Amino acid sequence: MKDFWYYVPTRINFGPSCFQYLVDTIKQWGTKPLIVYGGGSIKKNGAYDAVVGRLKEAGIPFVEMDGVEPNPRLESVIKGNEICRKEKCDILLPIGGASAIDCAKSIAATCTYKGDPWDIISKKVQVGKVFPIITVPTLSAAGSEMSTSSVISRMDINEKAGYSDPEMRPKASFLNPEFTFTMPKKQTAAGIADAISHVAESYFSNVPEAYLQAKFGEALFNTLFHYGKTVYNDPKNYEARSNIMWACCWAINGLVVKGNPVGWSMHKLEHELSAFYDVTHGIGLAVIMPAWMEWMLTEDNAYRYLGYLKAAFEIDPSGMDKMVAAKLAITKTKEYFAEIDLPLRLRDIGIEKDMLPKMAHEASIIGKDYFSKAFRVLDENAAFEIYKMAY
Amino acid sequence: MKDFWYYVPTRINFGPSCFQYLVDTIKQWGTKPLIVYGGGSIKKNGAYDAVVGRLKEAGIPFVEMDGVEPNPRLESVIKGNEICRKEKCDILLPIGGASAIDCAKSIAATCTYKGDPWDIISKKVQVGKVFPIITVPTLSAAGSEMSTSSVISRMDINEKAGYSDPEMRPKASFLNPEFTFTMPKKQTAAGIADAISHVAESYFSNVPEAYLQAKFGEALFNTLFHYGKTVYNDPKNYEARSNIMWACCWAINGLVVKGNPVGWSMHKLEHELSAFYDVTHGIGLAVIMPAWMEWMLTEDNAYRYLGYLKAAFEIDPSGMDKMVAAKLAITKTKEYFAEIDLPLRLRDIGIEKDMLPKMAHEASIIGKDYFSKAFRVLDENAAFEIYKMAY
Repeated sequence: MKDFWYYVPTRINFGPSCFQYLVDTIKQWGTKPLIVYGGGSIKKNGAYDAVVGRLKEAGIPFVEMDGVEPNPRLESVIKGNEICRKEKCDILLPIGGASAIDCAKSIAATCTYKGDPWDIISKKVQVGKVFPIITVPTLSAAGSEMSTSSVISRMDINEKAGYSDPEMRPKASFLNPEFTFTMPKKQTAAGIADAISHVAESYFSNVPEAYLQAKFGEALFNTLFHYGKTVYNDPKNYEARSNIMWACCWAINGLVVKGNPVGWSMHKLEHELSAFYDVTHGIGLAVIMPAWMEWMLTEDNAYRYLGYLKAAFEIDPSGMDKMVAAKLAITKTKEYFAEIDLPLRLRDIGIEKDMLPKMAHEASIIGKDYFSKAFRVLDENAAFEIYKMAY
Repeated sequence: MKDFWYYVPTRINFGPSCFQYLVDTIKQWGTKPLIVYGGGSIKKNGAYDAVVGRLKEAGIPFVEMDGVEPNPRLESVIKGNEICRKEKCDILLPIGGASAIDCAKSIAATCTYKGDPWDIISKKVQVGKVFPIITVPTLSAAGSEMSTSSVISRMDINEKAGYSDPEMRPKASFLNPEFTFTMPKKQTAAGIADAISHVAESYFSNVPEAYLQAKFGEALFNTLFHYGKTVYNDPKNYEARSNIMWACCWAINGLVVKGNPVGWSMHKLEHELSAFYDVTHGIGLAVIMPAWMEWMLTEDNAYRYLGYLKAAFEIDPSGMDKMVAAKLAITKTKEYFAEIDLPLRLRDIGIEKDMLPKMAHEASIIGKDYFSKAFRVLDENAAFEIYKMAY
């Protein structure tokens, strides 16, 4: 495996009893939290009350900001900065999905910066001081509760910028799988696809000697596919929800990628969908992933598809022709996504065919560094091919 | 899965280039390290020079203490405390195997305590202030470089006490797999058995709904068995050494046990061997593990043995009678240990038969809390049975 450093100092508090640690954690890291959330779902699933009730009881002052968009926008970051400065908040406390968490991370990372926050988000300026972030996720998907990254969109210039910094990793996160019981079905399915795609970006790598990382990837694939249909069809199944919630964290926190560096090319292709059409991230990924796998496949790298086939679908490829088995892995992926009602084609999610060249061009620009390190090296033509295959 | 918290803030720096971060890390955590090690192996494998050279170059003062025993003893902890106080060391820097690291952890945890250090080690007094610990492991085995525990022996009363505290988790560890190229064959084999036993203690659990943890356990079994023979027969194989080194960390750092609580009964049985006979920990575990697995096996829990058989030996048990498959898993384990020249019977490592009742009695006392939470509940008779089966 390649040389690496691994440092994941997020304290995870897991299960319905986890909030016993909330007040002490807040006090450890700050004095006045800004609670960041989206719509009203957190008031229905119990998360809002679990947090706010305890803060009030402990006499901890706090401020709220709601209305964060599904693909969080720069405007929300700016709004959060204004509130933080005015109210002297010194700790971010997002409750909700990755949108709320990513927005809070970007508020934390730009609040003390005097220039345009987009400078930092678009990586023109390095991340400086970051306020501590404590998260309460209520969706299982992007794993932002244990990761260093944040993705923010600007619809005015059709850009979706992802950036990361070790300081943006949450200090602590409180994961109660019960809060995900009421996730809308569409979000549940999109979350599964999102986490699967995170593992896939690392698993389909050119570092075969990072064997342990691949085996961890297979453990995650197996768990996500094993319980994915269960959470979709039986949303209050605690066993399934808890395994999915914990797996989503490990899919992105560094376990499968450290020592096993890869270019996150699938995400760059998907980002264009969200940038131009405000597509739900996980849904975009579900459409892109099978086409991406198909384009990536060669005689030399087929063995990875066999490992995936075995881990994800518990189909033993021994005795099968390797290319047949690899293609079966792709077909099975599509079938699985169809079973949890995810769309299979770009046309089904409102993408216009004549936009494909433009998106391929943009993807090749923002993805330049990523495309060259991918499982199979991509360029603008390849991006266009993949979009066409997914159309 | 059960409610849990997970917090592993050790920064791992991995690979031959990892020492680029050493000086900054030392400066971040203290001013004057006490370097702790055992015999002279670290002067041959390059680890000593890698550390001391950089400290000298950076003008960081340090003190050395050598001579830590393979099962580190209380006397070494006391000696370390005296040096630390006299020399005003404020950071522990063990180089070597788990013995050096465990000794350093106990120095760090007892140095500012005014009473007898054994009070803390034997859990009569809670751990208070702990000096920061930075480790440079040169053996792949116990994973002490990422864990919270320390084991210290007192030969005068035949006691081996293991204890743990979150503050005893190293702040950072520097892992260069090349330093393990020259591990003696016996240590290499013992290390493999040690790490396998760590995974087994958690994998053979009564929390089947901790599915992800079991899958991570299978990933670790697979990696350890896959590369175990390679590192034994081809000691300079970097791919194998690096995977084993990284797997040893994950076998013990909480990944497989959090949400999946278990009683560490196999270790309690082994501790008696070391306490009475100063047996190498991993070798004692290799002898105990197959007998322990055999005693634990019931019709109800056999399914776990099937998962183990598949992960460790890549043998698909489908179509086999479950008890036959479970017993095959045990036979295969013995065969594997024999292939890396590990002893298979207590008699082969100098244990006297008439000591078995006494060891069983002692194990049942120190193991009381552990035995009741084990995969199958043990008592003194059970301990005696297992020792007899292993004899």
